[in-house]
Amino acid sequence: MPFTYDRTIRFHETDAAGVVYFTNVLVICHEAYEASLIASGVNAGTFFRSGDAAMPIVHASVEFFKPMYCGDRVSIQLLSKQVNDSTFEICYEILGNASDRAPQTLESDNTARLVGKALTRHVCIAPQTQTRTMLSSQLINWLRQTGSTL
Amino acid sequence: MPFTYDRTIRFHETDAAGVVYFTNVLVICHEAYEASLIASGVNAGTFFRSGDAAMPIVHASVEFFKPMYCGDRVSIQLLSKQVNDSTFEICYEILGNASDRAPQTLESDNTARLVGKALTRHVCIAPQTQTRTMLSSQLINWLRQTGSTL
Amino acid sequence: MPFTYDRTIRFHETDAAGVVYFTNVLVICHEAYEASLIASGVNAGTFFRSGDAAMPIVHASVEFFKPMYCGDRVSIQLLSKQVNDSTFEICYEILGNASDRAPQTLESDNTARLVGKALTRHVCIAPQTQTRTMLSSQLINWLRQTGSTL
Amino acid sequence: MPFTYDRTIRFHETDAAGVVYFTNVLVICHEAYEASLIASGVNAGTFFRSGDAAMPIVHASVEFFKPMYCGDRVSIQLLSKQVNDSTFEICYEILGNASDRAPQTLESDNTARLVGKALTRHVCIAPQTQTRTMLSSQLINWLRQTGSTL
Repeated sequence: MPFTYDRTIRFHETDAAGVVYFTNVLVICHEAYEASLIASGVNAGTFFRSGDAAMPIVHASVEFFKPMYCGDRVSIQLLSKQVNDSTFEICYEILGNASDRAPQTLESDNTARLVGKALTRHVCIAPQTQTRTMLSSQLINWLRQTGSTL
Repeated sequence: MPFTYDRTIRFHETDAAGVVYFTNVLVICHEAYEASLIASGVNAGTFFRSGDAAMPIVHASVEFFKPMYCGDRVSIQLLSKQVNDSTFEICYEILGNASDRAPQTLESDNTARLVGKALTRHVCIAPQTQTRTMLSSQLINWLRQTGSTL
Repeated sequence: MPFTYDRTIRFHETDAAGVVYFTNVLVICHEAYEASLIASGVNAGTFFRSGDAAMPIVHASVEFFKPMYCGDRVSIQLLSKQVNDSTFEICYEILGNASDRAPQTLESDNTARLVGKALTRHVCIAPQTQTRTMLSSQLINWLRQTGSTL
Repeated sequence: MPFTYDRTIRFHETDAAGVVYFTNVLVICHEAYEASLIASGVNAGTFFRSGDAAMPIVHASVEFFKPMYCGDRVSIQLLSKQVNDSTFEICYEILGNASDRAPQTLESDNTARLVGKALTRHVCIAPQTQTRTMLSSQLINWLRQTGSTL
């Protein structure tokens, strides 16, 4: 049911401590959001350029349970939820997988594989008036496919 | 009393919606943390390379009240707080200022200038055992200067 | 014969001018290099952490022919070449493809699809002595698969 | 005569090899360009958003002589040069300085301090027609201050 986005951790996402720099986990979560929009038929090129409506993130949080390394394979499981007429949230579970640096033990239990969790809250804004406006039918459709509407 | 870090928003921090990409606000907050460590006498080059102790971020959150644009001047006000023997948190207030794109109205009221808030939680880990360990005296000293200890 | 790496342009790679920020094209090229190493059996997690040998980039250049937008599909074609005992270069051709923002006209001609070109030069260094050392047999093997050796 | 931009290397700019990720040196050079525009009276917020004219980078190159570490102080020396009616180039010299990780030996000789060099070429484009157009008087003024005009 939730949308899944697979990704290899890249070198530029790591830092001198040898692991993924903390904000890059949120970047990867946003990539999962973009991939889910594209899978739902949304044109990412125009969606984010904010003509009629902008969709800024007003809140984000992230928790880290285990470090991630260059070359690791991760799966992002994305679950969306409409909050009100103009707002939705996305929950992300970041699952570690068979990395190429470790013995290839594919853990079947998601809890054991959970390396992080994140949440983003998005509000629909009319650019001219800078006031909240209703989510488009395109977004309501995407919410139905990747989570739940009101 | 809180540590202040001033910064100009750079072009690479913006996205195609014309404003700062959301995770870059957390990057700038981490820069303020680094600047406060250096001001406190910590050697940033070795501190983050995790010899005897690693200091991973286990939680981060951020809220956005107003967009930030390329060329904007922002001030990060950082306030630290020890949570327990191995953990501390940092609160960040991001204040907008007289940007070079707007009439130079220096708002005196911090509430009016508040464009975002963030929080990071840091835990001290012994790399060999991957277990929590006590904050160093260097960090206790930094906590005294930039916030509060237990 | 050259290694091909396909990629969707992501929102965080764009800037306020609405297109991919220039250095991110080199980031994507380096991702193609990482993917080719992994495909060749190299462990990316340990390769870049530089135990016995570091492989710093000593030169990089990039040319841009057309802008890239969020949601665009690009293909990186990578061709490696050994220069001497301790040095190799990689040429990258970045090909635009059927983007989701444009009419789906899959151009068959690579020249018409060429949106950029890049080159990186890599030198093998012994960390202790900071002097040049010979490319490993693992890298010679990768050069044979993705380009040419001496 | 050349414009100088001082900067501390930040943790997010490093990678798992412990040094600055190669493309971030070009990011820092672009920051120096932005700082020189602002110093020359240009409004960075509107300049890069490309209303009447866009200024894309069509070529960039960078060479690395020494690694840079988190906490290092670097100076970017920027020198601009008009190439023709619609084109200019910028040369950057990246000088290492008294880092906080090393004995405070301020080297007086720029050659000894040189850790990298870079070059960017910029072309002025009319967005509507996507053809080259003349550099604005604002840019000619900036070229006079930071380098040379035709």
